[in-house]
Amino acid sequence: MSRYWSAVVHGLTPYVPGEQPKLDNLVKLNTNEHPYGPSPKALAAIRAATDDSLRLYPDPNADALKTALAQRFGVQPDQVFVGNGSDEVLAHAFQALLKHERELWFPDISYSFYPVYCGLYGVAQRQIPLADDFTIRVEDYLPRGDGTGEKAGAIIFPNPNAPTGRLLALDAVEQIVAANPDAVVLVDEAYVDFGGESAIKLVDQYPNLLVVHTFSKSRSLAGLRVGYAIGHKALIEGLERVKNSFNSYPLDRLALAGALASVEDEEFFQHSCQQVIATRETLVAQLQQLGFEVLPSGANFVFARHPARDGAELAAALRARAIIVRHFKQARIDQFLRITIGTDAQCAQLVQALGEILAD
Amino acid sequence: MSRYWSAVVHGLTPYVPGEQPKLDNLVKLNTNEHPYGPSPKALAAIRAATDDSLRLYPDPNADALKTALAQRFGVQPDQVFVGNGSDEVLAHAFQALLKHERELWFPDISYSFYPVYCGLYGVAQRQIPLADDFTIRVEDYLPRGDGTGEKAGAIIFPNPNAPTGRLLALDAVEQIVAANPDAVVLVDEAYVDFGGESAIKLVDQYPNLLVVHTFSKSRSLAGLRVGYAIGHKALIEGLERVKNSFNSYPLDRLALAGALASVEDEEFFQHSCQQVIATRETLVAQLQQLGFEVLPSGANFVFARHPARDGAELAAALRARAIIVRHFKQARIDQFLRITIGTDAQCAQLVQALGEILAD
Repeated sequence: MSRYWSAVVHGLTPYVPGEQPKLDNLVKLNTNEHPYGPSPKALAAIRAATDDSLRLYPDPNADALKTALAQRFGVQPDQVFVGNGSDEVLAHAFQALLKHERELWFPDISYSFYPVYCGLYGVAQRQIPLADDFTIRVEDYLPRGDGTGEKAGAIIFPNPNAPTGRLLALDAVEQIVAANPDAVVLVDEAYVDFGGESAIKLVDQYPNLLVVHTFSKSRSLAGLRVGYAIGHKALIEGLERVKNSFNSYPLDRLALAGALASVEDEEFFQHSCQQVIATRETLVAQLQQLGFEVLPSGANFVFARHPARDGAELAAALRARAIIVRHFKQARIDQFLRITIGTDAQCAQLVQALGEILAD
Repeated sequence: MSRYWSAVVHGLTPYVPGEQPKLDNLVKLNTNEHPYGPSPKALAAIRAATDDSLRLYPDPNADALKTALAQRFGVQPDQVFVGNGSDEVLAHAFQALLKHERELWFPDISYSFYPVYCGLYGVAQRQIPLADDFTIRVEDYLPRGDGTGEKAGAIIFPNPNAPTGRLLALDAVEQIVAANPDAVVLVDEAYVDFGGESAIKLVDQYPNLLVVHTFSKSRSLAGLRVGYAIGHKALIEGLERVKNSFNSYPLDRLALAGALASVEDEEFFQHSCQQVIATRETLVAQLQQLGFEVLPSGANFVFARHPARDGAELAAALRARAIIVRHFKQARIDQFLRITIGTDAQCAQLVQALGEILAD
């Protein structure tokens, strides 16, 4: 605490990201990175951009990248917003679009950055419990028909949800969006490419729908920091106004070059996602054989608990064998492990280690 | 305007950065970029980092870069904050350290992003007129001795000031810092390496002093987006709390690698700054020969006006000859041109063009 801090700083509880260990030789299955590298064309584009032109500012509007994303998704470039990772895109959205007199509604178990953003921007929030099977119940996000007339000021949820991995079907997403025409509904699709159906196809129908994606997972570019949002152009303009009042150039020249080349390499992208999905299906079967309950996953991670063993103890035992997974000390989910889908070899190592630990 | 926007968005007047033209063959002297490229060691480090490790998140704490900067300036790593360009560092500082009940004081003519940040975060502001010779008057930033007891909630100014280029001597900076022990004094030294003396040497003496630097000017890495702040560790902690409530990883792996290598190449850095200073001195003499009044510059740009010719007209005439400089439609300075120091050849082109325009 310091008398030089503004009032908001005193009240903040910052987000704690998953550990980025500086040791080598760890099987790192804790932050949902892609097990294989990005498109070689992205790497080539970055190398080609690594020259004296770095003395110049990047394009503050990222026109080339926005145009490529717009083409990829069949929307207009003014329906695309880009930022320094989807975390920055989400932060701007909380300030620009999710802060209203009525509360922002989101699941009690979801991306733990959401309540942090609420603290940073003073957004009134209501956390809505997931169902017992850890699904999002559509009826919980509809305006209340109980005579109170209660409705959300805005809504945000990840789909697939994190850290559960559970997917909400697109028609259920649409029900929520359609029933809340006065509220922005932000669908955070960081993991959608691993088996989900994106709500981007609905943005032209619903002016209140914003969909956020990242290059950090399915495009294997967590180290490059690129995320984007797609929605009606009025929502995008709100984001641009905040971005242009915060930082003119959030994406550097190398990130712009690499992201553009990644978007243009659709074949690599599809193959890369399929690899992860195939490994996930194998891992889920093996974990179930070991007695784990595994939630259905539409993501590049699985969320699993063992009926006979404590989650924190399992995580510690894995760490002692140089395998890191993520464990959340949070009510309802503290028996679960969140395990990133690694390479086939890494997943085999994990399964073997778990087998030994369970046999102890 | 949209009903989906939060209240703050409706009131924003975003910053407008200098144009980044997509045409080649322009003499681009409008955004104070360095005329020569960055350290070859920085480029080599970026290329070496361009591999499959981009699938992994960067170090969220940027430990290696902070340690190198701490060594460079003789401070501890926990006295260093890094961000996505100094604009992001400034934005966090406005929210974390410059927002108080009392007003933030800054010069009426200075970096035009300051009032934008005030709008974004609701910071009460007072703009204090520069003296007639465009210097910052120290006495204007001291608590009022007139019985009103008025004093600043916080203070920010660029040194050298932008867009004037005028430098405030270090003892004058120290007077302001020492006289305002209850207020954070942020010295924005984006241009200090072109002839100024940094206030970083004072941070251990004054817990209220924060100094902000950028890699975009003297380190010729505007395209990489790296900035930093140095001060007492309590100030840095305030910035970290906001940063960690906003975006865990604002610096990508390539920016971290390039910035680190740049800091380690001190010899290149010194030579690179000296080149710009030498060109500036030549350009100033030539502009004066053409009849321009040129403010004394400690920066990599000059601020100049011609007694007989309108500033906007001169800027337009230069543009017609494919030379872009910056002109501000702002009271008191609308007769000035802000001219970035280019290569010797670019400056010669500029001088020749101005000679022809003036002869018309």
